[in-house]
Amino acid sequence: DGLEQLGADGLYREILRDETVLRLKELGKISDGEGFLERTFLSPASFRATDVIISWMKDAGLTTWVDQMGNIHGRFEPSNSTDKALLIGSHMDTVIDAGMYDGALGIICAISALKVLRVTGKLQRLTRPVEVIAFSDEEGVRFQTTFLGSAAVAGILPESILQVSDKSGTTVQEALRLNSFEASAAALGQVKYSPESVGSYVEVHLEQGPVLEALRYPLGVVKGIAGQTRLKVIVDGSQGHAGTVPMKLRRDPMVAAAELVVTLEGLCKDPSRFLTYDEECGCFTEESLAGLVCTVGELLTWPSASNVIPGQVNFTVDIRAMDDLVRETIVASFSRIVMQRCDHRLVDCAVEHKHSAAATPCDPELTAQLKRATRSAVSAMAPGGHGHAGAESTATPVLMSGAGHDAMAMARLTRVGMLFVRCRGGVSHSPEEHVAEDDVWAAGLALLRFLDQHAVAEL
Amino acid sequence: DGLEQLGADGLYREILRDETVLRLKELGKISDGEGFLERTFLSPASFRATDVIISWMKDAGLTTWVDQMGNIHGRFEPSNSTDKALLIGSHMDTVIDAGMYDGALGIICAISALKVLRVTGKLQRLTRPVEVIAFSDEEGVRFQTTFLGSAAVAGILPESILQVSDKSGTTVQEALRLNSFEASAAALGQVKYSPESVGSYVEVHLEQGPVLEALRYPLGVVKGIAGQTRLKVIVDGSQGHAGTVPMKLRRDPMVAAAELVVTLEGLCKDPSRFLTYDEECGCFTEESLAGLVCTVGELLTWPSASNVIPGQVNFTVDIRAMDDLVRETIVASFSRIVMQRCDHRLVDCAVEHKHSAAATPCDPELTAQLKRATRSAVSAMAPGGHGHAGAESTATPVLMSGAGHDAMAMARLTRVGMLFVRCRGGVSHSPEEHVAEDDVWAAGLALLRFLDQHAVAEL
Repeated sequence: DGLEQLGADGLYREILRDETVLRLKELGKISDGEGFLERTFLSPASFRATDVIISWMKDAGLTTWVDQMGNIHGRFEPSNSTDKALLIGSHMDTVIDAGMYDGALGIICAISALKVLRVTGKLQRLTRPVEVIAFSDEEGVRFQTTFLGSAAVAGILPESILQVSDKSGTTVQEALRLNSFEASAAALGQVKYSPESVGSYVEVHLEQGPVLEALRYPLGVVKGIAGQTRLKVIVDGSQGHAGTVPMKLRRDPMVAAAELVVTLEGLCKDPSRFLTYDEECGCFTEESLAGLVCTVGELLTWPSASNVIPGQVNFTVDIRAMDDLVRETIVASFSRIVMQRCDHRLVDCAVEHKHSAAATPCDPELTAQLKRATRSAVSAMAPGGHGHAGAESTATPVLMSGAGHDAMAMARLTRVGMLFVRCRGGVSHSPEEHVAEDDVWAAGLALLRFLDQHAVAEL
Repeated sequence: DGLEQLGADGLYREILRDETVLRLKELGKISDGEGFLERTFLSPASFRATDVIISWMKDAGLTTWVDQMGNIHGRFEPSNSTDKALLIGSHMDTVIDAGMYDGALGIICAISALKVLRVTGKLQRLTRPVEVIAFSDEEGVRFQTTFLGSAAVAGILPESILQVSDKSGTTVQEALRLNSFEASAAALGQVKYSPESVGSYVEVHLEQGPVLEALRYPLGVVKGIAGQTRLKVIVDGSQGHAGTVPMKLRRDPMVAAAELVVTLEGLCKDPSRFLTYDEECGCFTEESLAGLVCTVGELLTWPSASNVIPGQVNFTVDIRAMDDLVRETIVASFSRIVMQRCDHRLVDCAVEHKHSAAATPCDPELTAQLKRATRSAVSAMAPGGHGHAGAESTATPVLMSGAGHDAMAMARLTRVGMLFVRCRGGVSHSPEEHVAEDDVWAAGLALLRFLDQHAVAEL
């Protein structure tokens, strides 16, 4: 095929691995913090990063601009194409004390894949517009509100967002105006893409979890972004002296809460042991169970002294699943179990619903194409082929994304697909975040092969 | 008997109930705080309280003095007696925002019982010296060290205590000198009683727990003060994103800790389910189980965010039992279970021993006498008799004290006995602390009948 003719071995190691890794390191140094990476929405470092990203986009042969929400666009528009655009993006902002892959990996891999198309002369053979977008805000560190960039492009950002303030009291509107953006409702409206102009959105992102590492595979396709329910459970008992209240006379909220924490884990791992006849939804397949996760991240005791039986214990519950029915069933079943166990222990319990979001499925066709591209890239790099990506099997893993991504917002505009890249130890949001150089390469090559299938005309 | 001849009905309601309750209220108003009760070691209020208590002791016919640790003594010394003294005491200091019964009840009941002996002419018939002591410090609020008063009398207070500082930097020595005490090692030595001069120590105290209320009985005798072990359990797991780490790949210290909290409760309620062959001590009788209490009062999660699987969870464990072998067996078994469960869950656990104290048994003979006196008092007050103390059965409850008391220090000097008084809801260390007036009466009457048996000569 075309790639074999123009690349030395069709793997483009110099661009997809070496240059991509150099650029990740370069972008990772552009920080508002001294000695650590922090690059938040509209910060000084974000504008220095914008200049660098624009230069890379131009180097890949793209036409560039920055929209009214600070998103960077780099687009190739084939002459005579009436096809809808393929958007490829991720976010350029970071958390505080961040790693250098979260967000940046997806932007730079996309630019590198397009650069390969440019140097191989294939850019001119694109059958549809292809556009890389570096979104200005996904983490939401500054304004405590996620997806400012992609939500504006998807057209789901409310005008009221302009009045939200950061810690210093500066509003989104003021921050935009300080940086010469228009910051009006009309300008926000111009950022929005019309659904008719967009055919699909694809995002490469590091996994931020340990699954690919456990499977010893560099890449995985994402079948969707999990739905989420957040609960707060409050257990009220009888506060008392640790020495004077016999075990049989206690109404101890600590033991009751502990029992619920253990039960939640059991419910998530093996719902059939806990569901009633009414709750049984027939929705718990091996696949749905693999994607179901339940977490108690915070537990508070009151008054919190070693010699006092607590009077109140409360804890958070985070339940995520790809299948909304699975998640809703677990939430309902857990709420029922809380009440039963609390009645049994004579403590008073309340379950507060704090947040609920439906799952975002990825498009099956895009996912199948990404899967094919991944298999092709990984097998080309495998020891029997021309490279080595550390893959021990040829079946591309299919993952759920438990974390939110720009693809969640973009799914409101168009069909979406995502590719996950293995990260060391599953660690993210930390300077310890790491992706092996060969895995960066694999991601770029898979994206290149996806573009080849999806948007490049056969000669 | 003598009481019947001199009292109207042998119940001395005016002294043992009405005056005692008035005095509890009066002492309860002597506070260093405005609108709440706080009376700590050597505080201004403690000296106002000293004057009042001395006047009450004199009213009961006692010779009074204040020793070099601020303890108040009121003694009747029979002529021609060579018997060892009976000491009756409790503490005059309080916690912050205290109730008015903790400590004060034991002092005032003792003074009232001796006042009855005076007004009935029985004081002259005492066969041994009887002395009421109001200890200056039991709660340890000011210097964070308990039993300053009774430990000095028992001779177990180290000289180094003089150099301990309160929050303002004032040492015990400075505080004593500011109030005209000598505050030397020699003066401390003079506070100590010789074991040869003391025959026994008896203390009346509110229960600070719910057992007597549950048994619907006004008084109980104490078989001993529990031994205590305090542990800290530290569970280290793998911190991670609540959305991206599948249940099967987690090393979640929260669930591991919760499992241990639940297991600790089970181990305390039914050790036989958990003990290994080696641990089985044959020491778990129904009685030892009734006195065994295990508490997790404080549990901390780190980093404590609803969307993060904690990296570390640690919690406190408080284990108390009357039987030291029972307590040590539970501690050993729990430590073993922690290691087993943690291994199973692939989390790293450590069990730190923070504190250990042996149990203080009460003297069986004194306890039997207190039991007899209690039965006699309660049945005299029962509906079929001359009063009503709310007792539904005639078997005097035998309790363990899970909290520490001056009797723990005094047990190092002499044999001890304790009488517990029912308190509402088991609540103590709170302005909500309450003892029914009839229960105050029952306590005074039981103490009077104990004195009658123990120290008053038959005519």
